[in-house]
Amino acid sequence: MKLKIAVLPGDGIGPEIMEQGIAVMDAIASKFGHEFEYEQALCGAHAIDEVGDPFPEKTYDICRNADAVLFAAVGDTRFDNDPTAKVRPEQGLLAMRKKLGLYANIRPVQTFKCLLHKSPLRSELVDGADFVCIRELTGGMYFGEKYQDNDKAYDTNYYTRPEIERILKVGFEYARKRHHHLTVVDKANVLASSRLWRQIAQEMEPSYPDVSVDYMYVDNAAMRMITEPTFFDVMITENTFGDILTDEGSCISGSMGLLPSASTGESTPVFEPVHGSWPQAKGQNKANPLAQILSVAMLLEHFNLVDEGELVRKAVDASLDACVRTPEIQVEGGAHYGTREVGMWIVDYIKK
Amino acid sequence: MKLKIAVLPGDGIGPEIMEQGIAVMDAIASKFGHEFEYEQALCGAHAIDEVGDPFPEKTYDICRNADAVLFAAVGDTRFDNDPTAKVRPEQGLLAMRKKLGLYANIRPVQTFKCLLHKSPLRSELVDGADFVCIRELTGGMYFGEKYQDNDKAYDTNYYTRPEIERILKVGFEYARKRHHHLTVVDKANVLASSRLWRQIAQEMEPSYPDVSVDYMYVDNAAMRMITEPTFFDVMITENTFGDILTDEGSCISGSMGLLPSASTGESTPVFEPVHGSWPQAKGQNKANPLAQILSVAMLLEHFNLVDEGELVRKAVDASLDACVRTPEIQVEGGAHYGTREVGMWIVDYIKK
Ligand SMILES: CC(C)[C@H](C(=O)O)[C@@H](O)C(=O)O
Ligand SMILES: CC(C)[C@H](C(=O)O)[C@@H](O)C(=O)O
Repeated sequence: MKLKIAVLPGDGIGPEIMEQGIAVMDAIASKFGHEFEYEQALCGAHAIDEVGDPFPEKTYDICRNADAVLFAAVGDTRFDNDPTAKVRPEQGLLAMRKKLGLYANIRPVQTFKCLLHKSPLRSELVDGADFVCIRELTGGMYFGEKYQDNDKAYDTNYYTRPEIERILKVGFEYARKRHHHLTVVDKANVLASSRLWRQIAQEMEPSYPDVSVDYMYVDNAAMRMITEPTFFDVMITENTFGDILTDEGSCISGSMGLLPSASTGESTPVFEPVHGSWPQAKGQNKANPLAQILSVAMLLEHFNLVDEGELVRKAVDASLDACVRTPEIQVEGGAHYGTREVGMWIVDYIKK
Repeated sequence: MKLKIAVLPGDGIGPEIMEQGIAVMDAIASKFGHEFEYEQALCGAHAIDEVGDPFPEKTYDICRNADAVLFAAVGDTRFDNDPTAKVRPEQGLLAMRKKLGLYANIRPVQTFKCLLHKSPLRSELVDGADFVCIRELTGGMYFGEKYQDNDKAYDTNYYTRPEIERILKVGFEYARKRHHHLTVVDKANVLASSRLWRQIAQEMEPSYPDVSVDYMYVDNAAMRMITEPTFFDVMITENTFGDILTDEGSCISGSMGLLPSASTGESTPVFEPVHGSWPQAKGQNKANPLAQILSVAMLLEHFNLVDEGELVRKAVDASLDACVRTPEIQVEGGAHYGTREVGMWIVDYIKK
């Protein structure tokens, strides 16, 4: 297969982990006889510095014309406490989502046996947790009408039927591919937008008789996720709730540094780690490349390269088993491996 | 002291736990020579059944003319999955908040040593967690303009400067009474309303030089609360985020059934347990009355009855130490005590 990949390394540790992601793609390409062609593009703080725009038009063009985007992370502490900054790295992220129509953000929450002790939850609670959070990514308060002056401000949580239908469709279909259990998370006891979500989900239920659906208020979901994470199979929710719940979800697994995500929609899909740009660790060869590498696995699977995706996952598991790990997940007394060393080990495993 | 207390037992287990709350108030009154006068009023599902309104005008009058409201819980499963129900118990709650101007919802999150093992978090993480969540309760998406038809819907997250200032003032002052650390939780990288919150908090900072303030995005806060709950002292946020975070907070302590709350504002303050009406346990004498009893402690402290509040807390601690506990927190092999038995034990302790 021939694939054109837009490569967006972004800020902080982004370029380092991306290097390993690409190395893994190359190893897969040569093993399976595929042809992956890459085109790098600017985004984030980096892009602000170079061209004054966190998601430049040129980057957009490169993404649009690619089959998939492999993204690392954006964000820089310089911008975090500067309310006067008019252009911010995160705007690049939001622009990318909107322009590529990435309405479905898909985040598998998976535990790794050897990292269970890293979870803030008791091991017996989180053991076996394996669910997917689907977050609507181009609507709601993120993109609704906003206003702010010195005395008042508002955001509008606006959703239309087509926006809700298309994301719920993703949820129902995902549930079908998994354990046929969909949890629709909303605040229908308070919000009009949530009531429309719930109404539409209820209308769609009969078309998916093999999927069992339950409805949960967001405050309950935030609790259930930590008191009984194994309850969930596929959870779906709107943008703002999804921002909170997907982050909560990724941190309960204890494997934050290992979690990939996919954002799909109207145009080119994007694959990226769940974690951020960790500016403090930049250039130190200590960031964990596994989430980036597993994002490559999701990318491959998206194009039905099932064996290829599986081999990447197997290689990652093997590296964990062999204790070839970056410092933050290394076992006591284990040797220190850097970003590059972990990546190279996985590449070698794939090539074997 | 003479106090007029409006008593709102509500639904489910509400009346049973309220009975114990009142018994404790009476014990305190006779021990310290106070005069507490009660007036019962309808609210919740109960009030819908009797007068068709979950927060009837008469209840409002009784609350308005009281010095404090002691509230138990509302809600009934009958309404939960009935999207056609036009009148719902929760509307009573929202009406009460709005009409009494209860803009500050204060929820201490406290751990009890003997219940640490009940926490979903690892004991070593949650041990020592002791913070207060302050949630704005009469603004934001809960009360902003709403619209819904078959094809679209919206809610408006609207805040004005005075609304933000008065709640932040509560936060700063609470921090002063505690460990001088205030965490303002928002989503200022995305929401206009959050940017106004952050701007105003920054303006107010110089007036509280003894309070150290930090700003945290809501997605981060949802993670931090489970990865490092001891980080927080006083956390403050807007209504919708507060709904999610306060619930997450109360469940990490492992002591959900023991957590009280206060809602204060323009008129009569309300004191109530954090937990819900648990309709399934209604009439079974097994609900834990401790959150209701600790709500009484908060009520007393609100009126500067410090010794009285402390005695109630001491009595609660003693009941836990003596393993006089309701089933869900009883130690293995411990005797079974009902709602009434726990309440009576605490009353006896106070009278001694
Ligand atoms: C950086 C921010 C705008 C973004 C969001 O809120 O969507 C991030 O938190 C995320 O979840 O990807
Ligand atoms: C019942 C519901 C309207 C209410 C809320 O969302 O405020 C509840 O969840 C709470 O937190 O008190």
